[in-house]
Amino acid sequence: MHLLLRRTSLRYILNHMVQYTNAHLDASFAALADVTRRGVLEQLGREEASITDLAAKFDMTLTGMKKHVGVLEHAGLITTQKIGRVRTCKIGPRRLEEAEAWIAKFQQLWAARFDELDKIVEELNRKEKIDGRKKRK
Amino acid sequence: MHLLLRRTSLRYILNHMVQYTNAHLDASFAALADVTRRGVLEQLGREEASITDLAAKFDMTLTGMKKHVGVLEHAGLITTQKIGRVRTCKIGPRRLEEAEAWIAKFQQLWAARFDELDKIVEELNRKEKIDGRKKRK
Repeated sequence: MHLLLRRTSLRYILNHMVQYTNAHLDASFAALADVTRRGVLEQLGREEASITDLAAKFDMTLTGMKKHVGVLEHAGLITTQKIGRVRTCKIGPRRLEEAEAWIAKFQQLWAARFDELDKIVEELNRKEKIDGRKKRK
Repeated sequence: MHLLLRRTSLRYILNHMVQYTNAHLDASFAALADVTRRGVLEQLGREEASITDLAAKFDMTLTGMKKHVGVLEHAGLITTQKIGRVRTCKIGPRRLEEAEAWIAKFQQLWAARFDELDKIVEELNRKEKIDGRKKRK
């Protein structure tokens, strides 16, 4: 393959990978931005449950719970399976690794940024001490 | 204070604390559910910037960027300060600890749940082997 073409393809693939991750991160974080959906995940982390069970547990209409389950399923955080008239929900397959990794990276940036500011403050304090000593002389 | 009254107060305070955490988690995760807002946080983690800088960097209108900055500020993930005509944005004060802790707890539940399923599968395999041996005899 021509080198330029290969580079273009590689960039195309990488770009798609980044877009894929971004879309997943958007969906994961959006799914977590609701107290009921977080509760459903915790509940399914303990044991699988039907949508009817979940609606009763979270004191919600079946229609309301179906919407929440849909958001969680779309984000890949739960799977559902209909057997007869009952739709059972389980956690998985996604484990929020990407979301966890993003937050960890941000925490590192945060710590580094504030270490930097600490150094500036320390430097200013040191200079102030030296200036104070000079004035006293 | 009467014991019953004290208990009621304690429950009232705890309930408020939980609601406060839940509202913060909702706001934090909602703020993270957008690729531009995550980009702005990463950018501000490196250095502070004005809304105009951010709009240019993310190829966005000033109005669009103001909305994203508003969401991040509401979630406590950034602070802004207006000096003259320029509004400067910095990261802080919130560090996403609650969001990180929630995800970590979910990962533990996930791992425990799948360990449990692994054990069931192992047990089934073991029984199958024993049955297989019995049949061969």
